[in-house]
Amino acid sequence: MQIAVAGGAQASPQEYETARAVGRLIAENGAVLLCGGLGGVMEAACRGAQEQGGTTVGIISGTGDGNPFLSIVIRTGLGHGRNVLVAQSGDALIAIGGSYGTLSEIAIALKTGCPVFGLSSWKIEGVVMCKTPEEAVKRALEGKGSG
Amino acid sequence: MQIAVAGGAQASPQEYETARAVGRLIAENGAVLLCGGLGGVMEAACRGAQEQGGTTVGIISGTGDGNPFLSIVIRTGLGHGRNVLVAQSGDALIAIGGSYGTLSEIAIALKTGCPVFGLSSWKIEGVVMCKTPEEAVKRALEGKGSG
Amino acid sequence: MQIAVAGGAQASPQEYETARAVGRLIAENGAVLLCGGLGGVMEAACRGAQEQGGTTVGIISGTGDGNPFLSIVIRTGLGHGRNVLVAQSGDALIAIGGSYGTLSEIAIALKTGCPVFGLSSWKIEGVVMCKTPEEAVKRALEGKGSG
Amino acid sequence: MQIAVAGGAQASPQEYETARAVGRLIAENGAVLLCGGLGGVMEAACRGAQEQGGTTVGIISGTGDGNPFLSIVIRTGLGHGRNVLVAQSGDALIAIGGSYGTLSEIAIALKTGCPVFGLSSWKIEGVVMCKTPEEAVKRALEGKGSG
Repeated sequence: MQIAVAGGAQASPQEYETARAVGRLIAENGAVLLCGGLGGVMEAACRGAQEQGGTTVGIISGTGDGNPFLSIVIRTGLGHGRNVLVAQSGDALIAIGGSYGTLSEIAIALKTGCPVFGLSSWKIEGVVMCKTPEEAVKRALEGKGSG
Repeated sequence: MQIAVAGGAQASPQEYETARAVGRLIAENGAVLLCGGLGGVMEAACRGAQEQGGTTVGIISGTGDGNPFLSIVIRTGLGHGRNVLVAQSGDALIAIGGSYGTLSEIAIALKTGCPVFGLSSWKIEGVVMCKTPEEAVKRALEGKGSG
Repeated sequence: MQIAVAGGAQASPQEYETARAVGRLIAENGAVLLCGGLGGVMEAACRGAQEQGGTTVGIISGTGDGNPFLSIVIRTGLGHGRNVLVAQSGDALIAIGGSYGTLSEIAIALKTGCPVFGLSSWKIEGVVMCKTPEEAVKRALEGKGSG
Repeated sequence: MQIAVAGGAQASPQEYETARAVGRLIAENGAVLLCGGLGGVMEAACRGAQEQGGTTVGIISGTGDGNPFLSIVIRTGLGHGRNVLVAQSGDALIAIGGSYGTLSEIAIALKTGCPVFGLSSWKIEGVVMCKTPEEAVKRALEGKGSG
């Protein structure tokens, strides 16, 4: 199972800890973590996953190396276009905070029928709002959205 | 000036007429109309623009021909990835109704600083809600969003 | 009809004049010129086309403005990924000189069944080598490759 | 280290065995195998790598599941545009046989400075032609192209 995590390249301390916990839980449950591979929420989630020995995939907008916690880096060079790939490649998407980039990932995920779980993120019809990392990851693993 | 129009591939009769009026006004003002090049709102806007002798560009998701009212067709083959190109290529974006695909275009436009004007569309922070095609096109031509 | 022109972002004086002549001939024949929208061969072709009152479309790799001779700019932000769009969007492709980027456009065009005409460019099976801009544009307009 | 493998979606028995051997060697040396994730050469390479317990990443053109030997699938939906991602994401590229799609991957790899090693593949300036899977993988791991 592949779980995508979306969120801002800058993260508040609270968002950083939330994302790190989400990453840990994804890895503990044996799932692969996909994300945009840069800083902030993306880095925190990867860090958490690697702390538990998990596999992390960064689908980066540029052609460099991404954050230091990536097992695998996909150098897309697509700019914002890479958001579409993150959203499409997850069996579920967990959105943590985030701004318009995150919103674009949520939109594409919902468009393609991928269940989306939100932690203090955009309140869009179709997103299942969750209260804790545990709830979000549990539901993502079950693959049950509202759709 | 290039104005992008976003909206569903299926349109209600009301949305169709709104989009057609938007297309007419864009052409009357000498701007180029960009869109996803398929049916529904996209077709209606192109139709309106061509009725006024305007130029229409369809940035299509596949590699076919798009709707019958295109002056130029860009065959991206990118699937939903083409939404990013529509949003980035407009000097302003007018969103008419629409579902998650339209939401992704709004999100990318706002992310990249492109002003967005909505007609019965997603109420997202940063979108300037307009009441008529005239208002939306006028403001888009002025390039004044809320940002 | 839409004719794509491929070639390097740096052009020798000879390549520049060849590309400009190709652009002029495309416009004189009422076809739309598509290209990557940057400098060198791309700029020369657009310049020639606009000198004849033609329409030019630049499918650029970034999100800026492209060269000064574009009627329409598609801001893809896709990096080298935009080469695929240029190759797919032309009804025929004319390649002028060029390096590996041009080769990628030739390859995608041939892959998708688009006829390719070469002027001092890559000698790849499937490319119709031409001796003059007149021959290349004439054959491109006829849409007759070797395939 | 990430090694990309390019080749046709249909493979001759000879190409299939070559690709499978390449995949085995990549995995034995602890590198990650990247490819387009579909059949033929891509499937054979992934199969070989998984036989040695390696990690395989399929960057697929559609949004489905790819071949049965993928550890991770990136659902790009980009059509031929995904070739650019394969070429850019490898630290080296090994091309096995192949037609125009493979040529496009070779071209983008060379464009971006990624060393390319060929096994009965396109003879393009810059490609290091190799005689055996062992030679190709050894040189790819050393990262030494002709460039």
